[in-house]
Amino acid sequence: MNYRAVVNVLGKIMFMEGTLMILPLIVAIIYGEYDTLIAFLIPIVILVSVGLAFGVKTPKNKMLLAKEGFMICGLAWIFMSAFGCLPFVISGMIPNYLDAFFETVSGLTTTGSSILTKVEGNPYGLLFWRSFTNWIGGMGVITFLMAIVPQGDGQAMHLMRAEVPGPKAGKIVSKLTDTARILYILYFILTALEIIMLMFSGIGFYHSVVTAFATAGTGGFSVKDASIAGYHSPYVEYVVATFMLLFGVNFNLYFFMILRKFKAVLQDTELKVYLGMVVASITLICINLLSTGKIAFETAFRDSYFTVTSIVSTSGFVTADFEQWSVFSKVILISLMFVGGMAGSTAGGMKVTRIVLYFKQMIRDIKQMVRPRQVMSVRINKKSVDNSILKGINTYLVIYVFILLTSTLLVSIEGQSLVTTFTSVVTCFNNIGPGMDGVGATSNFAHLSVLSKIVLSFDMLAGRLEIFPMMILLIPSTWKRRV
Amino acid sequence: MNYRAVVNVLGKIMFMEGTLMILPLIVAIIYGEYDTLIAFLIPIVILVSVGLAFGVKTPKNKMLLAKEGFMICGLAWIFMSAFGCLPFVISGMIPNYLDAFFETVSGLTTTGSSILTKVEGNPYGLLFWRSFTNWIGGMGVITFLMAIVPQGDGQAMHLMRAEVPGPKAGKIVSKLTDTARILYILYFILTALEIIMLMFSGIGFYHSVVTAFATAGTGGFSVKDASIAGYHSPYVEYVVATFMLLFGVNFNLYFFMILRKFKAVLQDTELKVYLGMVVASITLICINLLSTGKIAFETAFRDSYFTVTSIVSTSGFVTADFEQWSVFSKVILISLMFVGGMAGSTAGGMKVTRIVLYFKQMIRDIKQMVRPRQVMSVRINKKSVDNSILKGINTYLVIYVFILLTSTLLVSIEGQSLVTTFTSVVTCFNNIGPGMDGVGATSNFAHLSVLSKIVLSFDMLAGRLEIFPMMILLIPSTWKRRV
Repeated sequence: MNYRAVVNVLGKIMFMEGTLMILPLIVAIIYGEYDTLIAFLIPIVILVSVGLAFGVKTPKNKMLLAKEGFMICGLAWIFMSAFGCLPFVISGMIPNYLDAFFETVSGLTTTGSSILTKVEGNPYGLLFWRSFTNWIGGMGVITFLMAIVPQGDGQAMHLMRAEVPGPKAGKIVSKLTDTARILYILYFILTALEIIMLMFSGIGFYHSVVTAFATAGTGGFSVKDASIAGYHSPYVEYVVATFMLLFGVNFNLYFFMILRKFKAVLQDTELKVYLGMVVASITLICINLLSTGKIAFETAFRDSYFTVTSIVSTSGFVTADFEQWSVFSKVILISLMFVGGMAGSTAGGMKVTRIVLYFKQMIRDIKQMVRPRQVMSVRINKKSVDNSILKGINTYLVIYVFILLTSTLLVSIEGQSLVTTFTSVVTCFNNIGPGMDGVGATSNFAHLSVLSKIVLSFDMLAGRLEIFPMMILLIPSTWKRRV
Repeated sequence: MNYRAVVNVLGKIMFMEGTLMILPLIVAIIYGEYDTLIAFLIPIVILVSVGLAFGVKTPKNKMLLAKEGFMICGLAWIFMSAFGCLPFVISGMIPNYLDAFFETVSGLTTTGSSILTKVEGNPYGLLFWRSFTNWIGGMGVITFLMAIVPQGDGQAMHLMRAEVPGPKAGKIVSKLTDTARILYILYFILTALEIIMLMFSGIGFYHSVVTAFATAGTGGFSVKDASIAGYHSPYVEYVVATFMLLFGVNFNLYFFMILRKFKAVLQDTELKVYLGMVVASITLICINLLSTGKIAFETAFRDSYFTVTSIVSTSGFVTADFEQWSVFSKVILISLMFVGGMAGSTAGGMKVTRIVLYFKQMIRDIKQMVRPRQVMSVRINKKSVDNSILKGINTYLVIYVFILLTSTLLVSIEGQSLVTTFTSVVTCFNNIGPGMDGVGATSNFAHLSVLSKIVLSFDMLAGRLEIFPMMILLIPSTWKRRV
């Protein structure tokens, strides 16, 4: 284990977080919230000092193994959350450390589950930081580090592979540093576009920025108690819904569009399935809503469009109280919770590409039983899928189910209802935000027990990092020093 | 496709079912239920005629491919159910054909979910047939055919592999016909033992036989409205619970015990995990029940012992209304529903051995990430597990989840509660019996829609036959005639 290199990268990430926290500090100054400045200054000083102490002096041996990449990734996200929650604690906005930690994990992992019973009325600077964690976590902290501090490709690959969502982390261009930069530039442009679109609604610059941050990361933290419904503006709802859909798309496809490779984009299997699934879900839920006869077409369409894009992109913004919807609509939503967005997007869930691969593999295996001697490969985008990737997604499913069941059992100890227990795990593990019943669209996570909050924090991190970085921290052999 | 051989085997199975139906006919005669005799005579005549027409003349080419083995298995179970429900329809006990079909599928697949709102008061002969389907389905219809009509091993292997539960169908002895005979002899002995033990309780010969049938098949059909609770006898409860536990054990282990290979039995990993899981679940639920302070120790122990063995063996007999238990206990029960009994037992579910393999594979894969160059194999009972078996259980999991989600979505259309919708699928797919809420311990399946009953019938068959025989019937290329 190359401890020096591990500590060095972690130091850099701490330094980075300290620097990023200057932005909410400035917001606090602008809004004259001078009593909250100390809440940012203390963690900034700590983070920058720690960063300078460990992150500056690059060790001679910079080489990282796959295992160290996963470890750094897991530890980086835990440290970011452990320090990132300090402004909430120090300011007294969330006095309980565990609650603040839960909220920050929820922010960085772009889950959006909140323990706040009341959002409105809190200081602008602190709410800005809360929404900003959605944006930072969306494209990833390690990817950000790669984009600004060039690393050797040998080191960077293992780090980025651990953080970028999907069964295989694709390099867009040959150099990883350039890949990271391109991703962040695209992320920046799309965020800016949404801010501009939202400005037209008249909700003001602050609200446009924080809403765009939470949309871009597919996090779903809102500064309104009633989430996006609080703006009472169909225009805002359509803009946010459309951007949620866009942020659930693989960013590589946007790069292809810039390169004018439109054919590759149009023929992308994952994109077709993603959009097909969204259209089908909106149609079914919309018909289901209209069949009650109590709702106008435009409202039914808007509510289903917004809710489906919010769930499938794992954002978790809310406009309609889907708690009141039919069981059929709820089952569609719960199914979408597991699917999530596309690989290489900022969305969570299992990712559309895995679902496509599971399905194709299933058909292949059944056909294989009929014709055992024929060689059959699983193909996607006209290319044969490597067996190691199929093996990887199968392992992923096993561990996924294992974590889901274990977490549900642990959360059930506190005795919430079955639906609350199960959907709280589903929504946190898939980084969505709201669940159903006791953790539904109009509820929050404040009332859960200490054990549940710890379990759900683990689930949010495991979900965002696609399990392995968190699991690797749990097995003892990771921590054995070997020469 | 060797259609002649397929039709021939199916004909033999029809004949066999007609013959088996003579037993309930005799029971009906004994109890003087002469008005129900016609309800047995008509199907017996049909089945025997069809059997004689197609099953007697053995085709020249007896060779069956793997695909044909699966097909025969799937079709045999559907036909057995389609004809086996006729006595219920003709007698007017269950006038609706779909309801009667559901009940018979539930019986043969040893699920035990019932559409009967009242069991007591129905004719003895018909209730005997209902419980007898549990016994027939438990060890399997094709295995029974193998045991009485010797087939070539080349033909028999594909047939038995499709029916015997578990990731690999183990031959106990070198010849499959002998294996099938040994299995049925053991099944017979254990059933007889239970009948004798139950006779001591004073519930009478009829009740002892039908209860033992339903226990042996891990089916759970009872002739009492209140299931086993209806006997008001702790002794009966302990006997049934213990036999449910025993029928959830791999029958190979009983054969080993007859051969005095006790060491192999004691060292069997799957047995250890099975018993460990049962003991842990009983302990946790018992403590949970005692913590309410409203229940005596013996009752708490008996209720948890009975319910855990009933669920884990996927029998579905009921003594306590677990609907009233805490969410923690319910989550344990739902988890056990998925696990089920041991491979090679009469129990349903995913089987303990698969869960063990998933777990060991998961640990292996995480360790493999830490040491990518080391060759690591998954071992069980000190033997390395073949990669094709690991691939098989991974495919199984994918299809399992796919069927679970699709079924839940289809059942959700009728608008039951979320818990009813989900647990009705879980309980049918894993061949248990009762679910929760609207299909809970004290409810039944009568009120479900036509669509739900069809979906759940498919799930019961897919669950009992471990998916592939039913899936293979659904894909078009199975039905193409090839030279």
